[in-house]
Amino acid sequence: MKSAACDIDRRVLLSSLAVLPVLLGPLFPGLAQAQADALPSWNEGPTKSAILDFVARVTAQGGPGYVEPAQRIAVFDNDGTLWAEQPMYVQLAFVLDRVNALAPLNPSWKNKQPFKAVLDGDMRALAASGEQGLMQLVAITHAGMTSDEFAKVASDWLTTARHPRFKRPYTELVYQPMLELLTYLRANGFKTFIVSGGGVEFMRPWTEKVYGIPPEQVLGSSIKTRFQMRDGRPVIFRLPQINFIDDRAGKAMGINQQIGRRPIAAFGNSDGDLEMLQWTTMSGGVRLGLIVHHTDAEREFAYDRQAHFGKLDKALDAAALNKWTVADMKRDWKKVFPFQD
Amino acid sequence: MKSAACDIDRRVLLSSLAVLPVLLGPLFPGLAQAQADALPSWNEGPTKSAILDFVARVTAQGGPGYVEPAQRIAVFDNDGTLWAEQPMYVQLAFVLDRVNALAPLNPSWKNKQPFKAVLDGDMRALAASGEQGLMQLVAITHAGMTSDEFAKVASDWLTTARHPRFKRPYTELVYQPMLELLTYLRANGFKTFIVSGGGVEFMRPWTEKVYGIPPEQVLGSSIKTRFQMRDGRPVIFRLPQINFIDDRAGKAMGINQQIGRRPIAAFGNSDGDLEMLQWTTMSGGVRLGLIVHHTDAEREFAYDRQAHFGKLDKALDAAALNKWTVADMKRDWKKVFPFQD
Repeated sequence: MKSAACDIDRRVLLSSLAVLPVLLGPLFPGLAQAQADALPSWNEGPTKSAILDFVARVTAQGGPGYVEPAQRIAVFDNDGTLWAEQPMYVQLAFVLDRVNALAPLNPSWKNKQPFKAVLDGDMRALAASGEQGLMQLVAITHAGMTSDEFAKVASDWLTTARHPRFKRPYTELVYQPMLELLTYLRANGFKTFIVSGGGVEFMRPWTEKVYGIPPEQVLGSSIKTRFQMRDGRPVIFRLPQINFIDDRAGKAMGINQQIGRRPIAAFGNSDGDLEMLQWTTMSGGVRLGLIVHHTDAEREFAYDRQAHFGKLDKALDAAALNKWTVADMKRDWKKVFPFQD
Repeated sequence: MKSAACDIDRRVLLSSLAVLPVLLGPLFPGLAQAQADALPSWNEGPTKSAILDFVARVTAQGGPGYVEPAQRIAVFDNDGTLWAEQPMYVQLAFVLDRVNALAPLNPSWKNKQPFKAVLDGDMRALAASGEQGLMQLVAITHAGMTSDEFAKVASDWLTTARHPRFKRPYTELVYQPMLELLTYLRANGFKTFIVSGGGVEFMRPWTEKVYGIPPEQVLGSSIKTRFQMRDGRPVIFRLPQINFIDDRAGKAMGINQQIGRRPIAAFGNSDGDLEMLQWTTMSGGVRLGLIVHHTDAEREFAYDRQAHFGKLDKALDAAALNKWTVADMKRDWKKVFPFQD
């Protein structure tokens, strides 16, 4: 298990070194051309070509599509775009595990919804508890502690939790082709951001190690906080109230609010990414919008219009309409996860 | 006027090149030492020494205070820390100018507060209109348009508006020693952020050119927005409601929310920066907290505990208590503004 984590670290390291050609390129023409295939896990075909063509156009100095490096902002959804979101969002698995872990200290939960539903593994009853039920679970599992304490709880869980099908840490269920894409874009002067509906403080403890994306380039949903001094030390205390939902239109607004520039490339996989793709691509100029279509039940999962998590319906129609690139996982990806041959 | 702006651009360019020693340092030991005085506008003395010592300690590989580059986050207040905030906040001058510019289209304003107060230049009546009055002005001047439109209005105003005393564009009323400090920190691997009570979209159009700080590293107050499609194009529309006030405790919470790492250096000048300084410095480790104390009525302005804008009272007491560095403008700065000899 450790070795896979080290593999990922090595990739991040290599991706950092890959920036050198950008910096030194002007001094050594031809250096960039000397790169080997930067996307080895992508099969040859229209999807890979669309990516390579886009990058070639926006980086061609003097060309009509040239974009200066500071404007090369690329935004990535996380769940279902960078890592697996089936059979349920990883953060929901975290919530359920935490409720179970805390149950012995809270005997009344056995007879009280939505906790009873979680303890019984009754997903139908859980769904019936609605938004109010979900907020009660968030309050118990995500709030009532400092941000440092939450980061530790989330990190500790990620080191021990295993995916029910693949029996591996969730941080290994990341898509090898997307890791290569992140590295490739950064090597070409892009700044890569995560823009996820997931909780921002749930992601930050591990995104740098796993994706090479530092905390300050991670946007996500958040709960409200309070600054306070505790025993002479300042802490950020997490409150059981929603602050911002970084999903659907929220993604476009969050990008405007926190990044303050319009991206030129956006990567998503569900209807939650529709507005982010619109905001990125429908402003003129050379733009790339790409949707990961989960078509591979054998190596990963196959789902789209009817999915409970990561429903891809309107955004799939919009892709056809707006000429976004659709990456067909089964057809376009030579490899899905780093650990698969 | 153009030449001063070009000077600033040149500084930003030089600051980018100054990063090279950090990247190439391991290959060419001694390169860093070859740098000339990086803070020429700071007089020799305890303040300059505190800055230099801090940077030396956190960058000394193998030393007890070493901080890896990714963790070298430095946060700067804007008003009164990077540019002048007297005789009033620049953004307030913008609001007053905009109300005057829009008045001919709104004849009823002549008899209606808070507009009448603005048109009469009656600051006492304006203050009496309170928060509700201010929100009405914000609604008129900051909302009811798209983010792109607002960026243009703010940028256009900045090119024509002049400071009442110095008769220069506000973007020239930036502090030369602080520009040097920004450059110096970046040359030593720091990532520099603005964390301001000012409106984030009011700052972003010019911070990169003036300070070398890109939009995605600018945090500020914000109003709510709405994503919408207009004539087949997506826009972010600005609403007349406060979203977030990035001041006092809000600065610490905003840093946690958007940067997601605790800074190791913080620079401010007023009580609005107190919690940011606490959050940055009171967590153990080698940290730098610095307060710009406006003591120079001749070259700039002298104000602190009684000021209407940029009141420095509790934070000055806290500086003594917490051993933060206080930069005495008159004593420590050889030069205040770039245009002064």
